[in-house]
Amino acid sequence: MNERILHLGKLMTPLTLHPDRLFSPEPRQRDLARAIYATVKDLPIISPHGHTDPQWYADNEPFTNASALFITPDHYVFRMLYSQGIALEDLAIPRRDGGAVETDARRIWRIFAANYHLFRGTPTRIWLDHAFHQVFGIRERLSPESADRLFDSINASLAMPEFRPRALFERFNIEVIATTESPLDPLTHHAKIRASGWKGSVITAYRPDPVVDPEFEGFAANVARFGELAGEDTSHWDGYLAAHRKRRGFFKTMGATSTDHGHPTAQTSDLPAGDCERLLRKALDGAITSVEAEAFRGQMLTEMARMSLEDGLVMQIHPGSLRNHNPFVFARFGRDKGADIPTRTDYVRALKPLLDRYGNERKLTLILFTLDETSYARELAPLAGHYPALRLGPPWWFHDSPEGMLRFREQTTETAGFYNTVGFNDDTRAFLSIPARHDVARRIDCRYLAQLVAEHRIDEDEAFELAPELAYGLAKRAYKL
Amino acid sequence: MNERILHLGKLMTPLTLHPDRLFSPEPRQRDLARAIYATVKDLPIISPHGHTDPQWYADNEPFTNASALFITPDHYVFRMLYSQGIALEDLAIPRRDGGAVETDARRIWRIFAANYHLFRGTPTRIWLDHAFHQVFGIRERLSPESADRLFDSINASLAMPEFRPRALFERFNIEVIATTESPLDPLTHHAKIRASGWKGSVITAYRPDPVVDPEFEGFAANVARFGELAGEDTSHWDGYLAAHRKRRGFFKTMGATSTDHGHPTAQTSDLPAGDCERLLRKALDGAITSVEAEAFRGQMLTEMARMSLEDGLVMQIHPGSLRNHNPFVFARFGRDKGADIPTRTDYVRALKPLLDRYGNERKLTLILFTLDETSYARELAPLAGHYPALRLGPPWWFHDSPEGMLRFREQTTETAGFYNTVGFNDDTRAFLSIPARHDVARRIDCRYLAQLVAEHRIDEDEAFELAPELAYGLAKRAYKL
Amino acid sequence: MNERILHLGKLMTPLTLHPDRLFSPEPRQRDLARAIYATVKDLPIISPHGHTDPQWYADNEPFTNASALFITPDHYVFRMLYSQGIALEDLAIPRRDGGAVETDARRIWRIFAANYHLFRGTPTRIWLDHAFHQVFGIRERLSPESADRLFDSINASLAMPEFRPRALFERFNIEVIATTESPLDPLTHHAKIRASGWKGSVITAYRPDPVVDPEFEGFAANVARFGELAGEDTSHWDGYLAAHRKRRGFFKTMGATSTDHGHPTAQTSDLPAGDCERLLRKALDGAITSVEAEAFRGQMLTEMARMSLEDGLVMQIHPGSLRNHNPFVFARFGRDKGADIPTRTDYVRALKPLLDRYGNERKLTLILFTLDETSYARELAPLAGHYPALRLGPPWWFHDSPEGMLRFREQTTETAGFYNTVGFNDDTRAFLSIPARHDVARRIDCRYLAQLVAEHRIDEDEAFELAPELAYGLAKRAYKL
Repeated sequence: MNERILHLGKLMTPLTLHPDRLFSPEPRQRDLARAIYATVKDLPIISPHGHTDPQWYADNEPFTNASALFITPDHYVFRMLYSQGIALEDLAIPRRDGGAVETDARRIWRIFAANYHLFRGTPTRIWLDHAFHQVFGIRERLSPESADRLFDSINASLAMPEFRPRALFERFNIEVIATTESPLDPLTHHAKIRASGWKGSVITAYRPDPVVDPEFEGFAANVARFGELAGEDTSHWDGYLAAHRKRRGFFKTMGATSTDHGHPTAQTSDLPAGDCERLLRKALDGAITSVEAEAFRGQMLTEMARMSLEDGLVMQIHPGSLRNHNPFVFARFGRDKGADIPTRTDYVRALKPLLDRYGNERKLTLILFTLDETSYARELAPLAGHYPALRLGPPWWFHDSPEGMLRFREQTTETAGFYNTVGFNDDTRAFLSIPARHDVARRIDCRYLAQLVAEHRIDEDEAFELAPELAYGLAKRAYKL
Repeated sequence: MNERILHLGKLMTPLTLHPDRLFSPEPRQRDLARAIYATVKDLPIISPHGHTDPQWYADNEPFTNASALFITPDHYVFRMLYSQGIALEDLAIPRRDGGAVETDARRIWRIFAANYHLFRGTPTRIWLDHAFHQVFGIRERLSPESADRLFDSINASLAMPEFRPRALFERFNIEVIATTESPLDPLTHHAKIRASGWKGSVITAYRPDPVVDPEFEGFAANVARFGELAGEDTSHWDGYLAAHRKRRGFFKTMGATSTDHGHPTAQTSDLPAGDCERLLRKALDGAITSVEAEAFRGQMLTEMARMSLEDGLVMQIHPGSLRNHNPFVFARFGRDKGADIPTRTDYVRALKPLLDRYGNERKLTLILFTLDETSYARELAPLAGHYPALRLGPPWWFHDSPEGMLRFREQTTETAGFYNTVGFNDDTRAFLSIPARHDVARRIDCRYLAQLVAEHRIDEDEAFELAPELAYGLAKRAYKL
Repeated sequence: MNERILHLGKLMTPLTLHPDRLFSPEPRQRDLARAIYATVKDLPIISPHGHTDPQWYADNEPFTNASALFITPDHYVFRMLYSQGIALEDLAIPRRDGGAVETDARRIWRIFAANYHLFRGTPTRIWLDHAFHQVFGIRERLSPESADRLFDSINASLAMPEFRPRALFERFNIEVIATTESPLDPLTHHAKIRASGWKGSVITAYRPDPVVDPEFEGFAANVARFGELAGEDTSHWDGYLAAHRKRRGFFKTMGATSTDHGHPTAQTSDLPAGDCERLLRKALDGAITSVEAEAFRGQMLTEMARMSLEDGLVMQIHPGSLRNHNPFVFARFGRDKGADIPTRTDYVRALKPLLDRYGNERKLTLILFTLDETSYARELAPLAGHYPALRLGPPWWFHDSPEGMLRFREQTTETAGFYNTVGFNDDTRAFLSIPARHDVARRIDCRYLAQLVAEHRIDEDEAFELAPELAYGLAKRAYKL
């Protein structure tokens, strides 16, 4: 029982991180997992895909306060609070119309603390407790009673130089981190980081959704601006492709080793150039149908694969999220407000046009993600266990959790093995959660390996060889880092 | 080994209910589960959704015999026997054409006993053994040899006053039970219960399928009768809606706190009133297409949500069963004969019209059920973890089982947490199974909580706080009981 | 730790098969599983469905070498190697154009050994290690260092009489094995086996895909040849059906007790004879659309069910594989080269036409397989738990693995029970893997039964009664062997 203890004259509930957390409670597997984990827990973090803000590392300004750090920017946090009836305005989520939102960070923090029980059993709880304990040295569980003490303690820490972004980056032992930018981004923060002489490795990744998705807000204007940046006539197919080649090249100068594609489905196309020209024309004219828009996005995946064969960028597809499901939330607060919902996603027929053309290329690396776990054993593992170009990305978004990670291994390993996977991605904009997320992934992988050994499905020496691959080596090699 | 023992001069196989049943066999988790379960096992039963017959409580007549109690009315039991080649006539399932069926209850019981091995590993076996042991004090496992002894023993009990419905209701410690009635039901049994002075709380729930589903047998006649009961002209859209409002109001006088909707899909619609009028017209004329019928049912879900905001009734959607899959069984025996089969069910697009309109309402409670477990992690948990109006119903029908309940928790908790769920529903017409079903749910939830503690994913005090919520509190609050 | 040991002056990594492999590591469940397994491990092998070559048993020639035995014919092995960039030519996969492929078996074996780590965590690894250890007496793990030693050792064994096919068949304790042949096959190998006086029971099964699938290569020629073999005019519907009846009869003389149907979907049809005639005509003329081809295949499933009621052959449907997904591999190497990929598969609506007609027949046995595990709990168990004609085949192809088998039991038993399943199929052309595959199935089933006992869901005596049914009895009875 986690009894309250008397501390400085007050009853408090301690916050502890048990050294065996997330391992199987069965003693033999726990002991094995512990031994395997000991060999990987201190490996540097490879973060090949994520959404942290490069400005943090460029400007190295302090984070402002606990609420602004942990609540307002984290859609996992505020979607749960919203689901239980708390207004987003009360959590300082900015309104598009400039309407009033809560400005008192302490009041926001108290709402969060009063509802911390909602996160029981969720990975968010694991990530937060890890950050409180490991980053801020907090030893008291968040609760309505402890809310102010934690708020003050975190804020006091944030004011110190060792809590600035670059110091945390180094303390987190991040070997390299990738951010994700649009082709329209001038990458000035990345340039500033490079010019600063700081040794932290922050690289970009090419995410062309705003200029390849005809249904993206402002597509035509985006493509025009894209043409200006690249010095190409993007109103024609050839110029449009040339602009991609140039911007990809520019992104490579800022360290990019990968591209990323967040499409509603995994649909790919392989159309004649004339059709592409016509689709681009209709898209720029705002006259494209949704079926044609799907074909155009699908065509661009095939084009990106072709360019990857030329310039070596690793390709990632993140399909299957129905964005902005809630029109009220979208109208009032905009994108990325916890209202994106997964949908059933087909890979077998969807990827065929691209794979027919490039699936047998050993020099192409195409990393597949899914929000539809039913595809693990049925589609993704069989595909990745055959096509030389394919690899499986780690469990993503709603599945980046202990149970989700176990399901991923249980449902992909028997058909695709370990070596067709690419290690872990934290895929986060919550900087403070990065060590926690990698720790969860390492623990769950060690747990899984321990189980395989305990069931005599692999030998113990093999588990010790696999663990650093899953924690470090596979990501580094797959992403060419 | 469960060895046969010598009892009253006969070899018999004992029937035992192990105190640790359904807990993890791993000692630490078992001990934790045991301790947590001890705090919830005697909590009163909240049964917010089910199909017991209100006449039982109204008339309080004795149940007739073991076969009529356990076999003939239980589609879980007779579908399994039928799948292995036993004719439904031999189990006394009434034929629509009045054809002969077995009338000897003992002979039916012997068939059942001879095939009791078919239920190994099924929840039916757990429910039956629980009822035999706990309700009837039987200590011998059902088998061909013991068949007659159990039959006689159960029948002898049923003749006693303490085995009448009200006595069992009290002995089962049911705090409140909801039955489910059509708007066409006069609720006379409920009125009789209320008038009787008996303190047992039996309430109704509004299940309008016969008057909202144009494909329901006798739809036009149902709607006409509906109009008569409500004193409204249901041949027009306004009168039809007004009739719903009135009947909902009447159901509330018989304790209803909820509505329930058993649709083939989760499709919702949000149509202009003119279209609704036209669809109603075509439905009443028997001229509606299946696509239009789907639109009409979907519209009625949105209308029901609107009325729920007015009158406070909690709304339940039970979609995804393809009813009467077997035309031979339907023609000969009618509905609900074990031939309803689940189908893939989409929620993300299907619910959008309703959610676009009412998903952000904090005063609406819309409880979602599924027969398609793939929707747990992919659709239902992400939806319920965002929309204030949504909650997740417990595992349902084919998934109301130990493995099904574990999968539900494992696949929903990480995204939706515990507090977007609503405790357990027994959803049964098998009165004797109610304590068993709630006991299974409590044991599995305690097992799951014990696992989370043993893996250091929640603290022990939190498990003790959550357990009574899952067993009692969440259901009581979600259903406003 | 599996430490290297000094053996004959060399460091080597031992190869061991732990007696408790695949059991739960939790001591109580492990001990129970061990005890149950002891009662079934030596039962004869019933192999009611598979793809071994009858010529092996007919001619009883020695297998040539380790590579030709383990690598070149095994699509599980070469698809994994191919996925990691190894050319199929380097593994001696024959090219359709007669182009050069590797001919040095030792060089192929070395490639395999250098990549043996890719199979960690896969069932292929389990099968191979089992064959190395149990069949060839190898005590050293395959690795680049040990490659040549294993190659030489296996080859030396293969030259000995006790490693010829019939000797291995007897050593494997195979009571009966079914191969799978097209109606166009003259079954000369089966005739030779029967004429030889050898007591090994090798039977055929009727797999009519080449003459029922209008999209099969050479369909019209196949049907013409089919007519010649049967002495029927297969250009007309009646003659075409009559040819099936005759060839089924002929297959029965070679021991067939079953038919098998490998369709892209589970679609069935029930069309008037006139439509069937027209579809056959179009199919033979090469003028059939893909929708019509689907209808024709579906019709043939219903026809096969009708014939099964006449002649007693058990019917198997293996749907849901999208064959030859990779056009490059198909063009260069042909069918069955690891490029078949599972797809989502519906059963509930697809099977309805056939079930409407024959689902209630107790004398029909229709065994369903799936590559889409989401259908286990949602569709297949509910269907098999109701229809007298239906049974569930074991986990198939990509799911014939420890995790796959556990998921099958966990997701089907609660609704369909054990007695609506049919034991294990190895379904393999890899002869040496047969004992390993059956051993895996027996171990996993014993593990599952031990878990049910340890959780007090069944009694111990029931587990001991069920185990031999799952390992032997159910298959023997379901397939009428």
